[in-house]
Amino acid sequence: MTTGKVYLVGAGPGDPELLTVKAARLLRDADAVLHDELVTPQILRLANPAAWLHNVGKRCGTRKITQEEINFLMVGLASAGLQVVRLKGGDPLIFGRAGEEIEALRRAGIAYEIVPGITAALGAAAGAAIPLTDRRGPAAVVFVTGRRAADQEERDWQHFVRSGATLAIYMPGRNYSQITSRLSKAGLAGDTPCAVVSRATTAEQQLHVTTIGELPGAPALAAPALLIVGEVVRLAAQSMPLVPAADIEQFLSHTIELNPRELAS
Amino acid sequence: MTTGKVYLVGAGPGDPELLTVKAARLLRDADAVLHDELVTPQILRLANPAAWLHNVGKRCGTRKITQEEINFLMVGLASAGLQVVRLKGGDPLIFGRAGEEIEALRRAGIAYEIVPGITAALGAAAGAAIPLTDRRGPAAVVFVTGRRAADQEERDWQHFVRSGATLAIYMPGRNYSQITSRLSKAGLAGDTPCAVVSRATTAEQQLHVTTIGELPGAPALAAPALLIVGEVVRLAAQSMPLVPAADIEQFLSHTIELNPRELAS
Repeated sequence: MTTGKVYLVGAGPGDPELLTVKAARLLRDADAVLHDELVTPQILRLANPAAWLHNVGKRCGTRKITQEEINFLMVGLASAGLQVVRLKGGDPLIFGRAGEEIEALRRAGIAYEIVPGITAALGAAAGAAIPLTDRRGPAAVVFVTGRRAADQEERDWQHFVRSGATLAIYMPGRNYSQITSRLSKAGLAGDTPCAVVSRATTAEQQLHVTTIGELPGAPALAAPALLIVGEVVRLAAQSMPLVPAADIEQFLSHTIELNPRELAS
Repeated sequence: MTTGKVYLVGAGPGDPELLTVKAARLLRDADAVLHDELVTPQILRLANPAAWLHNVGKRCGTRKITQEEINFLMVGLASAGLQVVRLKGGDPLIFGRAGEEIEALRRAGIAYEIVPGITAALGAAAGAAIPLTDRRGPAAVVFVTGRRAADQEERDWQHFVRSGATLAIYMPGRNYSQITSRLSKAGLAGDTPCAVVSRATTAEQQLHVTTIGELPGAPALAAPALLIVGEVVRLAAQSMPLVPAADIEQFLSHTIELNPRELAS
């Protein structure tokens, strides 16, 4: 019997071509794939046709599977000798609850490996052509969720705003007034530019560039969305044409001739 | 004549398998590749054998090519009708000076597209199995460089430290005493855990877990390195075995049968 193993794999921001080569290979070879709700059918189609696919994300109208149940599933399948891909949207170590899953795997003595993915902020920035840092401006970027523990909230936002770093706000929700109010209270100027990027890197990508003061009047774009806040948003490509996704299956299924070349030293 | 275009592409943290599928495809189809110094020969071998490869990164002992010269090259090659891949280590929009290159391409009216990559912090976190955020702990992560403008420095570090976010410090350099001194002055406790991850995701990866107080005594690991600071470092896999890189050329050059499967709805 082969030894089982769990791969915590990032599925990237949406475009199947933004999977890493390693993620594509592991999906192709997986015995079981436990995936989050946000992972698209186009990506799941790349999995081994014989693999057992299971959605462990939230579902509308039915009971949500608990983190303990996910841990139990991973450990059980790997103990049975299976190669398990735990597939998460974006990167597994950024807002992905990987810490709890890693601890469960360690406690159970299961071999594991972490395969990073393109996190949503990088997908949104690429889709909108917004550099998150700039030599002439912000030399730092903060990745933070829109939903934070109330007791930490005010203090944290103040520090982030005052640092002058670009803010990449995950899960901003659709209550933009609340975000404007929080950031204004934390000292952010109303004319600070910001951009909502919805479904970044997919054919449904939408971009709305505005200011923090005007944000409450912005259209509520579809989830998943990301809010980028800071002077760098002035560099956004308002009118950048969307490039249709290439046919990843065709690419991966064709023989690619990769002749190693001599490199100039 | 075909229309030229420039792709600003992230090459990821080191392991060639951590290229995105899109980056691998664009490299295979490129007419010209302008790459940074940190991009490895293993990755450059994936480029079209007929492509013109040019290292536009720093070189020891010779004059460094300027940003203006890089911009001029990109614009010139694309104007001549070539498909140009501007290949940067990690992600192009995180400490990659992409802002200046995007502006030059816009001014010249050259078509461009940004292809995100796995930034160094995500590679280091995956290699060391450190979640950068945790539901039970830090709900934010700051990506920042070790080298910052002196006038902003003290104020910024104070805000980052006080926010309680995990810090991912790019280019920490080898003067660890300086980093300890800065972070301590900014109010960080000496017993805060930290990890230096050197050459993450490559066969030469090295990991040193310590505390901010003990950091000056740590061995100076080879560049590129990343310093992760925060309570999440307690979750690091001190003894996680390094997994040898799979043979990416073999994977890409073999026919992969990807039978689209019916997904349970």
